[in-house]
Amino acid sequence: MSRVVVALGGNALLQRDERPGAQVQYHHVETAAAPLAAIAAAHALIVTHGNGPQVGLLALESAADPDLEAPYPFDTLGAETQGMIGYWLAQALRNATGGAEVVALVTQTVVDPADPAFTHPTKFVGRPYDEAEAHALVAARGWVVHPDGARWRRVVASPDPLEVVEVAVLERLVCAGVVPVCVGGGGVPVVREGGRLRGVEAVIDKDLASALVARALGADLLVMATDVAHVELGFGTPEARPLERVTPGELAAMTFAPGSMGPKVEAARRFVSATGGRAAIGALGALEGLVAGGAGTQVVPD
Amino acid sequence: MSRVVVALGGNALLQRDERPGAQVQYHHVETAAAPLAAIAAAHALIVTHGNGPQVGLLALESAADPDLEAPYPFDTLGAETQGMIGYWLAQALRNATGGAEVVALVTQTVVDPADPAFTHPTKFVGRPYDEAEAHALVAARGWVVHPDGARWRRVVASPDPLEVVEVAVLERLVCAGVVPVCVGGGGVPVVREGGRLRGVEAVIDKDLASALVARALGADLLVMATDVAHVELGFGTPEARPLERVTPGELAAMTFAPGSMGPKVEAARRFVSATGGRAAIGALGALEGLVAGGAGTQVVPD
Repeated sequence: MSRVVVALGGNALLQRDERPGAQVQYHHVETAAAPLAAIAAAHALIVTHGNGPQVGLLALESAADPDLEAPYPFDTLGAETQGMIGYWLAQALRNATGGAEVVALVTQTVVDPADPAFTHPTKFVGRPYDEAEAHALVAARGWVVHPDGARWRRVVASPDPLEVVEVAVLERLVCAGVVPVCVGGGGVPVVREGGRLRGVEAVIDKDLASALVARALGADLLVMATDVAHVELGFGTPEARPLERVTPGELAAMTFAPGSMGPKVEAARRFVSATGGRAAIGALGALEGLVAGGAGTQVVPD
Repeated sequence: MSRVVVALGGNALLQRDERPGAQVQYHHVETAAAPLAAIAAAHALIVTHGNGPQVGLLALESAADPDLEAPYPFDTLGAETQGMIGYWLAQALRNATGGAEVVALVTQTVVDPADPAFTHPTKFVGRPYDEAEAHALVAARGWVVHPDGARWRRVVASPDPLEVVEVAVLERLVCAGVVPVCVGGGGVPVVREGGRLRGVEAVIDKDLASALVARALGADLLVMATDVAHVELGFGTPEARPLERVTPGELAAMTFAPGSMGPKVEAARRFVSATGGRAAIGALGALEGLVAGGAGTQVVPD
């Protein structure tokens, strides 16, 4: 039975124009669970997911909490989102499969404390502020802020994921036929210090972390399900054209938007280069075609 | 190797006079991890935990969030606390054991939708309000409120736990030598409806849920670690005396405070009656004595 890692983008839970309520997100999760159940019937499935809107919401709530002297850090907030989204996904997928063993695990992802991302944070989190307000938050809370269009937003480090701490447990579960929901939001970011783990203020890219766990579990296929049908070359230009079948070598010679598609392409490139497996990027609604090979952008060995 | 379930009370994470910051709670978790690591070296350990202060904090943050039309329900909030506290405990225990496989799982606990607790909610959650403020919240949000001393607080249902959904996965992990952190806050409350699971607005007692998982996993010992050294008969009276060794039959003839000690005593009674195993209730600082049998209140078969 082949192993398939499906990484669900943030839009699997919340669309751009929606308010981040629990009910609407659960509704989207239930919609995603139907095609995931079909995959789980024929493959050993591992589910990962993003947490961008959710961790941003919890960070704002924590920062606004009058009972707290300091907001909760991003490792703890990320763990909260793993609990929440993991619960929704595990419950909905257990229901959609008619009772398959599905379980959400809280997993940690090791990063390098010397990763240059820590001195050059780039990942936008939370809401936009006016410039004066943003600089006041830098002084008050030690945030790093960057302009985002006409306004300013907090940025945090997005270091490269190196290792999923719980991979041995995941391997046992997959071997036993359990569907794990894991590596949520890229995993809780931690560093190793003298053999001990310690949480750090960072947000790990969930596609790069999903490629890492796919490789560690010997997956045959890594699917990144998002809200566009294909990776496009020249995205947003009149010359835009969809990529249907591409190799890691070809991808390395192309450029993509650093924000959203860049990490997906890099994750696909890394996974296929390292394993000789296949990766697919495309719409959540076309999940079965992405797995079968006929939909989206299929990344195949050189 | 004997199986030991240790249920950590809320005070393992936060003391009554402390503000609920992340750092202070992680510090307490690290303190608890040292004796837990000693237990894990000699026994198959399963860790469960409460979430009272934490779920109350998140409920208030969610209710105050201007981006939400409705606060998140208690099943989702409970799952958030499982992620957060589970992460802290799993990381600290992995560190304290020098790298044992410890993993936090998001687990669901089935309750009966016809449980009388749903029509007579009794479990206080969140902060106190003035009477007028409390009645305004009843009208605005559909809360049920009760007097708590001179002020009023929200109450939610605390139905009896019937089944831990993920028990088969937990059994696999324990057999494989993994230490699971599970049943946090009593588990995410769910009902079964035609074979499907659905979250409900409730907070399950974590000691009763811990007794349930201890029984399902065939545990030899259930330890409830709290902030008092013993269960006391006549607690708060001049005749108060510590119970050192007691049987389920003797306990059934005694009365205890319904709030905190009552569920612990009932959990111990149920576990020991059903299994012929042993239960212990006492101070977290005496954990090794509680396990060995020489400390706290030891509940032994009739």
